[in-house]
Order: sequence, then structure tokens, then C-alpha cells
Amino acid sequence: MPYSYLSHLYCPKTGERYPAGRVQQLSQVGAPLLVAYDLQALKETWKPADLVGREASLWRYHELLPVRDPANVVTLGEGFTPLLPTPRVGQDMGIRDLWMKDEGIIPTGSFKARGAAVGVSRALELGVSRLAMPTNGNAGAAWALYAARAGIEATIVMPQDAPLITRNEVYACGARLFLVDGLISDAGKQVAQAVAEEGLFDASTLKEPYRIEGKKTMGLEIAEQFGWRLPDVILYPTGGGVGLIGIHKAFKELRELGWIAAGRPLPRLVAVQASGCAPIVKAWEARAKESEFWPDSQTVAFGINVPKPLGDFLVLEALYESEGCALAIEDAELLKEQRRVAELEGAFVCPEGAAVFAAARRLRENGWIKDNERVVALNTGAGIKYPDTLTADAPLLQPGERLPR
Amino acid sequence: MPYSYLSHLYCPKTGERYPAGRVQQLSQVGAPLLVAYDLQALKETWKPADLVGREASLWRYHELLPVRDPANVVTLGEGFTPLLPTPRVGQDMGIRDLWMKDEGIIPTGSFKARGAAVGVSRALELGVSRLAMPTNGNAGAAWALYAARAGIEATIVMPQDAPLITRNEVYACGARLFLVDGLISDAGKQVAQAVAEEGLFDASTLKEPYRIEGKKTMGLEIAEQFGWRLPDVILYPTGGGVGLIGIHKAFKELRELGWIAAGRPLPRLVAVQASGCAPIVKAWEARAKESEFWPDSQTVAFGINVPKPLGDFLVLEALYESEGCALAIEDAELLKEQRRVAELEGAFVCPEGAAVFAAARRLRENGWIKDNERVVALNTGAGIKYPDTLTADAPLLQPGERLPR
Repeated sequence: MPYSYLSHLYCPKTGERYPAGRVQQLSQVGAPLLVAYDLQALKETWKPADLVGREASLWRYHELLPVRDPANVVTLGEGFTPLLPTPRVGQDMGIRDLWMKDEGIIPTGSFKARGAAVGVSRALELGVSRLAMPTNGNAGAAWALYAARAGIEATIVMPQDAPLITRNEVYACGARLFLVDGLISDAGKQVAQAVAEEGLFDASTLKEPYRIEGKKTMGLEIAEQFGWRLPDVILYPTGGGVGLIGIHKAFKELRELGWIAAGRPLPRLVAVQASGCAPIVKAWEARAKESEFWPDSQTVAFGINVPKPLGDFLVLEALYESEGCALAIEDAELLKEQRRVAELEGAFVCPEGAAVFAAARRLRENGWIKDNERVVALNTGAGIKYPDTLTADAPLLQPGERLPR
Repeated sequence: MPYSYLSHLYCPKTGERYPAGRVQQLSQVGAPLLVAYDLQALKETWKPADLVGREASLWRYHELLPVRDPANVVTLGEGFTPLLPTPRVGQDMGIRDLWMKDEGIIPTGSFKARGAAVGVSRALELGVSRLAMPTNGNAGAAWALYAARAGIEATIVMPQDAPLITRNEVYACGARLFLVDGLISDAGKQVAQAVAEEGLFDASTLKEPYRIEGKKTMGLEIAEQFGWRLPDVILYPTGGGVGLIGIHKAFKELRELGWIAAGRPLPRLVAVQASGCAPIVKAWEARAKESEFWPDSQTVAFGINVPKPLGDFLVLEALYESEGCALAIEDAELLKEQRRVAELEGAFVCPEGAAVFAAARRLRENGWIKDNERVVALNTGAGIKYPDTLTADAPLLQPGERLPR
């Protein structure tokens, strides 16, 4: 059996096919390329029971990933993250069957590790030796670290306001790091210029086809961890939206493989954004096919501050196809929810993850989430990566002083 | 088959037995209590093949853990962390078969989660409703979060110099948090007073018997992940030393179960300390049975700043029994190694973990680690928990400015 059943790439706008065997960026019409597999052949030979006893990482699904030779796998042990029951916060918001997929338990402390692991591995396989990307922090940290492990030179440009810890990660591994006194869109322009002038591989979100495949494994894991019975609703904090696109793609592939029931509807996907940056919500409310640039975007949930995602049409398509929805959460509300989740479940989630819990609460209140539905909140990273989102208030004692009751 | 083969507790100094069915703290002579299992019965019914397909957490070894009823398990999905090859840093220091057990990929970003998960679960099982502990940061954060998940009230006292992020974690989950203008030893005295006056459960390191069992699972995992063939050397950053005691205990239990070869020597354990706080190193060099208080201790590796560990005699016993050694690393040296590991392997380890890599380098140089030996460096936490240990130096650009080559 081949290690990967990778077949080809295709443009989701025109359907045009592209060979997978060499470096590709966007399609001729400027759309992100998607990855296709030989699912008919795979269906004959690959069964859920084959996964039993495989390693506890996303590479357990290597047949459905794009790396052809296991020697090219660049791994830090990412994936197969916990899917935890969260009954106390569920009870607090009236959802009896609430779960958290915890992407904080992963190298670099953020789900960006999935896209980086698969994207860097495939770049290595295709002979890339230098890559560049703009980032709001976590993606750049992940790509820089995986690139270091692969021996690939990385050039990372991030806003100077991006979380300090992600800057440290990029710096620690010796990548070329630049800060810009502006937004990720400014960083993007600078990367585009360097790509053109220096011949670097452009690893910007969705400008390379393989990070979606890494993110897709969140969907594969949710399916496997629930014994191939999918939940009713999955809430996802949406910036670039790659994970949401990937999860939906995973479920469609599993349906074609016959691993999940063909008759049942796929999970309703919910794109959760911040009120200060909600282009997908605005587009979804207008039933539009694409989003519009969101000016002066701002939120404490830095990872979802993306004013005009390149894959917006794919995100919206996944929402419409799955009969999902989109909604925006105020910063104050998500910060409150962050503490509630920590108090009730012992999980210190990131602000983006907290937004998802707040959204679940809202959707239960307005009845969109129904009684007895199984709901998964996707926490995309560890709260510890954002030391500035809360200020601990604690009495300072002198040695020998008795603890106040 | 019972869920746990827990038998009883015993004092390692006197051999006296204590019943496991109720709350216990230290033995009558003031020593930490150790946990015994009915290994003879377990040997008859439990085989390595039984682990295949079990959940990817430390609870896969529940027969060798002290929680009797699975309903009392308090879990955030901890354990079964990656055991990664680190060939490039290995080559750089002349060790051909170097591996890293990465305890950064765990809830709370620190291996303290293991002790907290098992300790809190067992406390819940025994009816504890309020616990207290002094901490240098990570242990307090882990115990506070797991206690929150269990619905147990936690009182945490930490030096005001302890890492800010750990303070945030304790605060976020609503524990009682106090800072002290002093050392962990000052915090310990305040906790002891509160324990006496308020009737709290004392969860201080080794004053409760079960965190060792949680830490022990690192040894069980290393054995399983290597296919039940143990490595030659394991290096461990040693503060309280609970993990080192636990790993050694794990191997002895596996030998009694017949899961590892009886004839082969156990791995040589290496206690790595910081030059600014090296009581175990000093005691080991003198072939002493106990350590002496290390005055004015100081190191950037905050987690191993423990001037007089309560379990020092058990750590030293494990070093002597395993024919291991102890050595101390300067702060400047470990900080240099932290960057080298990030550059060569893409892993951003914590300062304590970096000390271990520096120690491996030293021991290879002086020949203590021999050619062709299999060596495991234990990284106890994620580098992202320590934002202050490095300062990223990066050019700040204006929007539109070209990246300098």
C-alpha cells in the first residue's frame, strides 16, 4: 500500500487540475488549490480498524495526507489532541452533551502546528529550501519551528503588536524575523515582494495547498474519537478559516470512504468571530459568497483578526453546505467566558477558544442549538500563550504572615 | 479485573505499612509515603498487548495507578507525550541515538500535570474538598486547574518572582492565590500553618503519596514507546526530584511484572541541576544519603530552584541504584543550549529541559555517555511558559519597506 493516496490538485473555482508533483501556489484565477486523493482505491484497502495501535499523532491518517515518502515527515508529535467532556460548563449553558477539542495540547501550543507539520513536510518533499510568510503570530511560530526541524530557512514577518511569545519562538529557532509597524496585510505585501525578488516559497495562508490537509486532521480525529459518529454542531474560531474548511473537507472524504453514514447530515459548522473583526459573519448574514474587507479590525483574540480571508468563499460554502451559521462575540464577553471555562472545567483556553464557548452559550439561548444535541467547541490554543489577556489579582504577603481566610 | 491494583502505602525509611483507603500525608518518621501494588496478581492478568488501542493518556496504565474507581478520574487528556528523535542536536554533541521526551505537549504546558491529575483524582476519591500547596509556579498552576475540574477548592501560595503565566493560570480558575515576598520555603511555612488551622489537605510535594504515581507514567511511556527495551541513560532536570523517583519506580515495577528483561541493568539516571541550586549534585559527589540546604539559591530555571528537596534521599538512592550521576549547569550554558535545540530540532524547550541537553553534551565530552548508547533527554515543559528567558531581537519595518536581505 502506498503511504499516501495523493492524486492531484484542483482549483475550487474553475475545477482545473494541477499536478501535485511540483511546487504550486495559487490557481491561475488566484484561488487556493485543494488537494484530491484517490479515494476509490483507498476505499478498497483502508478500514477504520487499521488505525488501532497507530501512533497518537495526525500521521496516523497518512493515507489521507499529501506526503508520499515517510522519510519526509517533519514531526514534533503533533495531533491526536484530547477530546474532553465539559459537563459543568455545558450544564451552565444548558447543553447536555458539550465537548472540547483541545488544540492547546500540541507543539507550539496552537493548532497552527498541524498546518505547519504537513505544509513543511510537503515543502521539504518538493525540494523547497527557503520559505516566507506573514503572520499574526502563532502560524509564524509554528512554521518557523517546523522549518528549523526540516533544515529549511524561514522568513517571518509579523505585526509588532503580535503576541510576544510567538516572537520569541521565531527568534529562538534562528529564523529571519521582521516586525512591521502595521497589520498582517502590510506584512503580506512585504512577503510578496521578497518572494518575487528572492525566489522564496510563499507559505502565506492558502497560497500553498497543504496546510488545509494538516488542519483537516482535526475533523478526522473528532470522527475517530467519537467512534465514527459525528457530532451535531462544531464551533470554530474563524480568522483565515482554514481549519473550518479542512474539517468540512475531512467529513466529505470520510463519507466517500464509507467510514461515516452516508444518510446522516454532516455537522453544522459555526464560524465564530470577534465583534471587532467579523467579515464572515457579515457575509453570512447577507448570504453572500465572499466577504468584504473589514476596516480597522481589532480584538484581543489576535488569531482571528483577519479582515479579509483569502479562503472566505470556501468558509462560506462550508457554512451553507452544512447548514451552519456565523456569529460574532464581544471581547468582554469572551474574556468572561475564558474565566468561566477555567473555573468550571480546569481548562485555561485561549481567547479564540473562549469566543467559541461564548458562541455556544448564545446559540443555545436562542434555540439554534437544540436540546440533546452533541456539540464540540474547538479550542485552538493554550491560554498560556497570551499572558496579557488577564491580570492576576492576588494579595502579597510577607514571610511568616498568616494567610487571610 | 479491578481498575487499580493498589495495595497499600509504606514508609521507605522504616518499611512500616499504612492503609491506602484514607487520607495520608507523611509517615510517622516524617518521610514521604510510597505506593505499593499487588504486582503478583497483576502479573497474571495484565500483558503489554492489553495496552494496544487504549486511550493516548497516562490513564492507559490505570492498573498501575492508585485510583480505584474510573468515575474519580480527573483528566484533561494528560500524558502519552511524544518521544522524539533529535538526531541533529545529537550529532552536534556526538550522541548518535539521542531522544527527547517532550513534556511540553501536555495540559498546562508542564509535566506537573501528571502529578496533579493523579494526585487530584485520588484526593477526590478519598473525599478531599479543600487542598493547599506552596509552589514555584508550574505545580501550583496544574494543581489549581485540576482541582477546579474536580470541584475541589485550592489554596496556592507562590513566590512573587514565580513565572507570571503560572500566576495567571491559578487566578483564571478561581483558586485562592497568595504571593509571598520570599522563597518557596516561606510559602511552605504559610501553607503548613493554614493546613493546621483550617484543616486543609496538604498537597505539598511528597507530603501526599500519589503525585509520584503520576510522574511514574513518564517511565512507563518511555518503556512502551521504545517497545519495552529501555534506553541506557535518562537525564532529568531535578528540583524536587519526584519525576526521577517515579521513573525509577516505574522501571522496577515493570521488571517485577516481567515486561522488561530482568537481566539487563536499568537506565542510568542523571539528576541535572543548575549551578545556582545544586544540593543533589553536592550530596552525590560526597556519596551522601541526604542533601543539605543550599543557601541563596538562584537560577533562571525556576522549576529546579529547590534548595532542600524533601525526597532527596529517594533521589540519591535512585542515582546510586541505577549507577547514574548528578551534575550542575550554568545558566548561561543552558540558555545557549535552549537556542541550539530550537535551531537544530525546532523544539522550543523550557530552561530546565535545556539544562538537560547541556548536561548530555558535557557527559558525552567526558566519556560518561559512551558511543552508541541510547540517551533520553527529558524536557519537563514548554518554552512558551517562560517568555522572559529570551529577548527577541528583530528589525522593525514601516509598511511598504522592503525586507533587508
